[in-house]
Order: sequence, then structure tokens, then C-alpha cells
Amino acid sequence: MCILYLADPAAAGEWRDYLSTLAPELEFRQWPDIGNPAEVLYILAWEPLADLAEQFRNLRVLYAAGAGVDQFDLAQLPDQVSLVRLVDLSMADIMAEYVLLSVLALHRDILTYQEDQRSGRWQPRPIVHASQRRVGVMGVGNLGRAALDRLQPLGFKLSGWNRSLKNVPGGRCYVGLEQLEHFLGQCDILVNMLPLTPETNGILNAARFRCLPHGAGFINVGRGAHVIEQDLLDALNAGQVGGAVLDVLVQEPPSPQSPFWKHPRILLTPHVASDVQIEGGVAVIVENLRREREGLPILNVVDRSKGY
Amino acid sequence: MCILYLADPAAAGEWRDYLSTLAPELEFRQWPDIGNPAEVLYILAWEPLADLAEQFRNLRVLYAAGAGVDQFDLAQLPDQVSLVRLVDLSMADIMAEYVLLSVLALHRDILTYQEDQRSGRWQPRPIVHASQRRVGVMGVGNLGRAALDRLQPLGFKLSGWNRSLKNVPGGRCYVGLEQLEHFLGQCDILVNMLPLTPETNGILNAARFRCLPHGAGFINVGRGAHVIEQDLLDALNAGQVGGAVLDVLVQEPPSPQSPFWKHPRILLTPHVASDVQIEGGVAVIVENLRREREGLPILNVVDRSKGY
Repeated sequence: MCILYLADPAAAGEWRDYLSTLAPELEFRQWPDIGNPAEVLYILAWEPLADLAEQFRNLRVLYAAGAGVDQFDLAQLPDQVSLVRLVDLSMADIMAEYVLLSVLALHRDILTYQEDQRSGRWQPRPIVHASQRRVGVMGVGNLGRAALDRLQPLGFKLSGWNRSLKNVPGGRCYVGLEQLEHFLGQCDILVNMLPLTPETNGILNAARFRCLPHGAGFINVGRGAHVIEQDLLDALNAGQVGGAVLDVLVQEPPSPQSPFWKHPRILLTPHVASDVQIEGGVAVIVENLRREREGLPILNVVDRSKGY
Repeated sequence: MCILYLADPAAAGEWRDYLSTLAPELEFRQWPDIGNPAEVLYILAWEPLADLAEQFRNLRVLYAAGAGVDQFDLAQLPDQVSLVRLVDLSMADIMAEYVLLSVLALHRDILTYQEDQRSGRWQPRPIVHASQRRVGVMGVGNLGRAALDRLQPLGFKLSGWNRSLKNVPGGRCYVGLEQLEHFLGQCDILVNMLPLTPETNGILNAARFRCLPHGAGFINVGRGAHVIEQDLLDALNAGQVGGAVLDVLVQEPPSPQSPFWKHPRILLTPHVASDVQIEGGVAVIVENLRREREGLPILNVVDRSKGY
């Protein structure tokens, strides 16, 4: 019984150490040393293997080494293989910390003050109370909820938008495409935390940015492909979107010519809002091994009908 | 009975409206229309008047329109005049919000990512858990305590340094100059929230910066004069201080030649971490009027022996 590791080579040693301590029954193999493929019951991967199903016919679980699973083609995955997200509490905490930082940066006009600083301009601007700032989160799953829970004690006016109705602390949950424009119309700061699915691909386009209050802030910690990037740039250049904090892009890294590098109203970070935390990820794997032994359903399985 | 207003002219109308509603017995006069100076019992000012005592011989209270009172010379103030700070809860909240933003920005390497962005470099750096980041606050008064209370739920390791022993949530309070070096030695991020007094003037000098762990972050929301600015620049250029968020400087605005404008490891904001909130400030004045009528001691009086 072994797990094949296909994720970040730099982290392989740490995964091996944790797994060998907490699940000594599980042999750890690192790609490309796959040994006998029939012994591979689990795979931990960041990106999909083309011939996964043919090569590893006893595969039971494919563990995705990230919060999103859009890089895996669910249609190509045999029915008996479960795709499992390694989302753990500490990953949600770290993501929520980044969202909090980004919301505060837009709320307190940091991009403006940085432009002022570079231009040698000392110009205080009015302070807006958090209670006067409406922050809306698209995607109220585990990660979205953790972010909302961090924002609430600061007094922001919160709302959420989700495929199905969820509890939004202190605010309203807008549901479905028919309420999307209404939701956007009351977002002074919009945070995208959606999973990427065929339904959400390109969801943030010119028409949607026009729904926002003029000068709204935008934060993307979902996926680059949620956004029609030229539409975002146009909205930023027109002032319709006042500033953006982007942790994800369609192309990562962007080309040297990309306007995202130099845009004064964009704070760009290299896909570091969160990361699978090895300790928490191993805990999910160990718990699922126990559940398999006891015949219980395993945790964090991606719903094939929803894609997340 | 009247209050003379000498603070920001742009905010005068709002102060007048609040005061006339909540303290209609108090006539509002705006500088330079002082009328009969003998009727001026209260003054609300950002900066001191040279001949205050001679001109307004019935003055009872000088309200300082800011968190700090170092701009007023307590020795020049007659004994019967109280100097009162208009610190209110919402002012502390706004300051704490700025401190939270600054701590998160240094914690999540935003200055580094912005340098990367401007250079076209896409380079994720390891995420440090908040539980591994030690944040120390100098000055554990109302404002310092509010900041610590905001930082605690994120899991940072907290400590404080103060003239007298105070309660620091989840951490240790270091006391007095003899424990200052010990305190600094365990600050991955140092936040200065001290009042400016003869004892704290220039307290952050080269020797003190050398006490910090190499590459520590520094946040100044106290006063510029707490810092020997050339020593801070030297520490930044040597990497001893890894990055700084500065809301205050010795000279505001700094001269066009000041190195603070262009330094890549400094985020500079124009003294906007917080501001007296008119509603909260008026509440302090109204409560003190009531206390005077009932012969009770008034609130927020500056202790002349301590200077804050």
C-alpha cells in the first residue's frame, strides 16, 4: 500500500516525514520512482497525470495538493477513484489572513498612498469607518466563511454570494445568477473566492464590473480564469474599479509584457494567498485511512456534479 | 459660556452641528472670531496658542484635537486649566485597524512582493504562520491595548513594553528601560505606540534597532521624534530592519529630498493612522460638561507629571 507523491519536490521530504510518523503503514514514493504501479492506492498531485487511470489501476484516492481542483478533469477520472481536497483549517486561516490584509489595504487607500509616496505627495484622505464599508464575498464555502469570520469583528458590512444559500455572519447571502447583479451593486469591496467550474469561468466580465459601485475595490484569491482580464483592466483604467489585489492570473507568471506588472492600481502577489499546509494535509490523509479501514465515507471528496 | 474652535477649519461645521445638538448651552465660536475672551471657558485646538493663559483668563479646559498632546507645553498652562485628550473608542478602533493592516503587510511580505511586481519577478516566498511571528507593542495604553486586542485572534505571539505593568493579552508586558533590550530582542515586528515625552524622545536609535532580530519589521504610529531617523534608514539599508510602515515623521510633510519618499522598504502614509472622531470627541466634551455641573472629576485629563 503506497502513496505516490507528484507535488512540489522541495516539500517532498517534509510530507514523507509527517506521513511516515503518522501513517507508517503507508509507503511513500516520489515521482518518477513509481515502483510497481499496482501498489499505488493513493496519489498526491498538484497537476493531473494524462494516463492516470490506465497506469494505476488500483488507485483509490487522488489527493489534490491545493484548494482548487479545476486543473483535474473529473470526466477522465474513473468512478472508483475519489478526488479529495486537502483543505484544512490552517489553510483556511491563512487564506482568511490574506483576505483581511487585502480588504484593509483597499479600505485604507494604501494603493493611493503608495502612488502619493512615489510622487512625493503628502495628502491625508478622509478615513471611512468600517461600518460604512460593504464587503461582499463570492463563494461562501469553508474558505469564504473563514474570511467573513475574520472581517466581521472589524465592523464591516458583510454579504455573500453563493450557488446555494449559506449563513453569512451579520449579513445577507445572495443566491444564484439572478441575484448576482443585486449583490454586486452593494459591494464597495468585492472578494472572489469561488471555485473554478464551467459555470464560474469568466463570470467577472465588463457587464459585471459595471454593476459595482463606482470606484469599488476588487480582490481575487479564486482563479485567474474567473476574470476576463481585459475587462478588469478597462474597468481599472476607467476608475470603475478603484483598485485590485490579485493573487491569481490566467497566466502565471504573466508574460513580461503583461500590464499587470506595472499597473499603479494593482497589487499583485504570486499565488501565495494560501497553500496546503503539510501538517493539516497529512491529518486529512490519516483520517481518511482510518475511515477506509472502518468502512466510513472519506472526507473532502469533490462532488462530481458540482466540480468542487 | 462658549467653546472656541481652533482645529481643522474643514471640520468646523460638523463639530458645531454635533455640539449644538448635544450641548445647546455651549456657544460655538470659530477662530479668529473670538468675541469676548472672558466668555471662553473651553478651547478645542490642534496646536497651542502662544498667549493662551493671558488672553483667556476664564479658560477651564483645553481640548486637544488629537491622540498626542506633545505639541502643548504643559509648563505654560496655568494650573487651573486642564488639558484633555479627545480619545474615544472609535479613534482607538481606527488606530487598531491601521496597526492590524501594517502588521499583516509586513507579516505577509507585501513590500517584497511589491518590489517583485515592479521588477517583473514572480517568486512565491514561504508563508510564516502567525503563531511563529512575535509582535511587540511599545506603549500599552488605550490605543496600544486596542491594537493588541485586534492582533490576538489572528494567533500572533504578543508582547508589550510599558512604563508601568499592564495586561497584555496572551503575552508578557516588559516594564521600564531595564527591560527594553530584552523586549526588542524578541520582536519580529515592532509597533511604536508610545506618547512623546522627554523620556521617549529619540528612544528608537541605532543601539535599539540593533537589539531587534535581524530583518524585523517596524511600524511607527507614535510620533516621528521617537525615532532617530538616520539610524532607522541605516538599519533599513543594512537589512537589520527588513521593512517599515511609517505614519509619522519628524518633519511632516518631509522635504522633497527626503529619502523616505522613495525607499523601497518603507510604506509611508501621511499621518492618517487615526484621527479624532467628531462624534466620539463631542461625547467626551458633553460628558465632561455634565461632570463639571455635578462636581465630579472630568475625563481624559493629561497627567502633568507623566505628560500624557
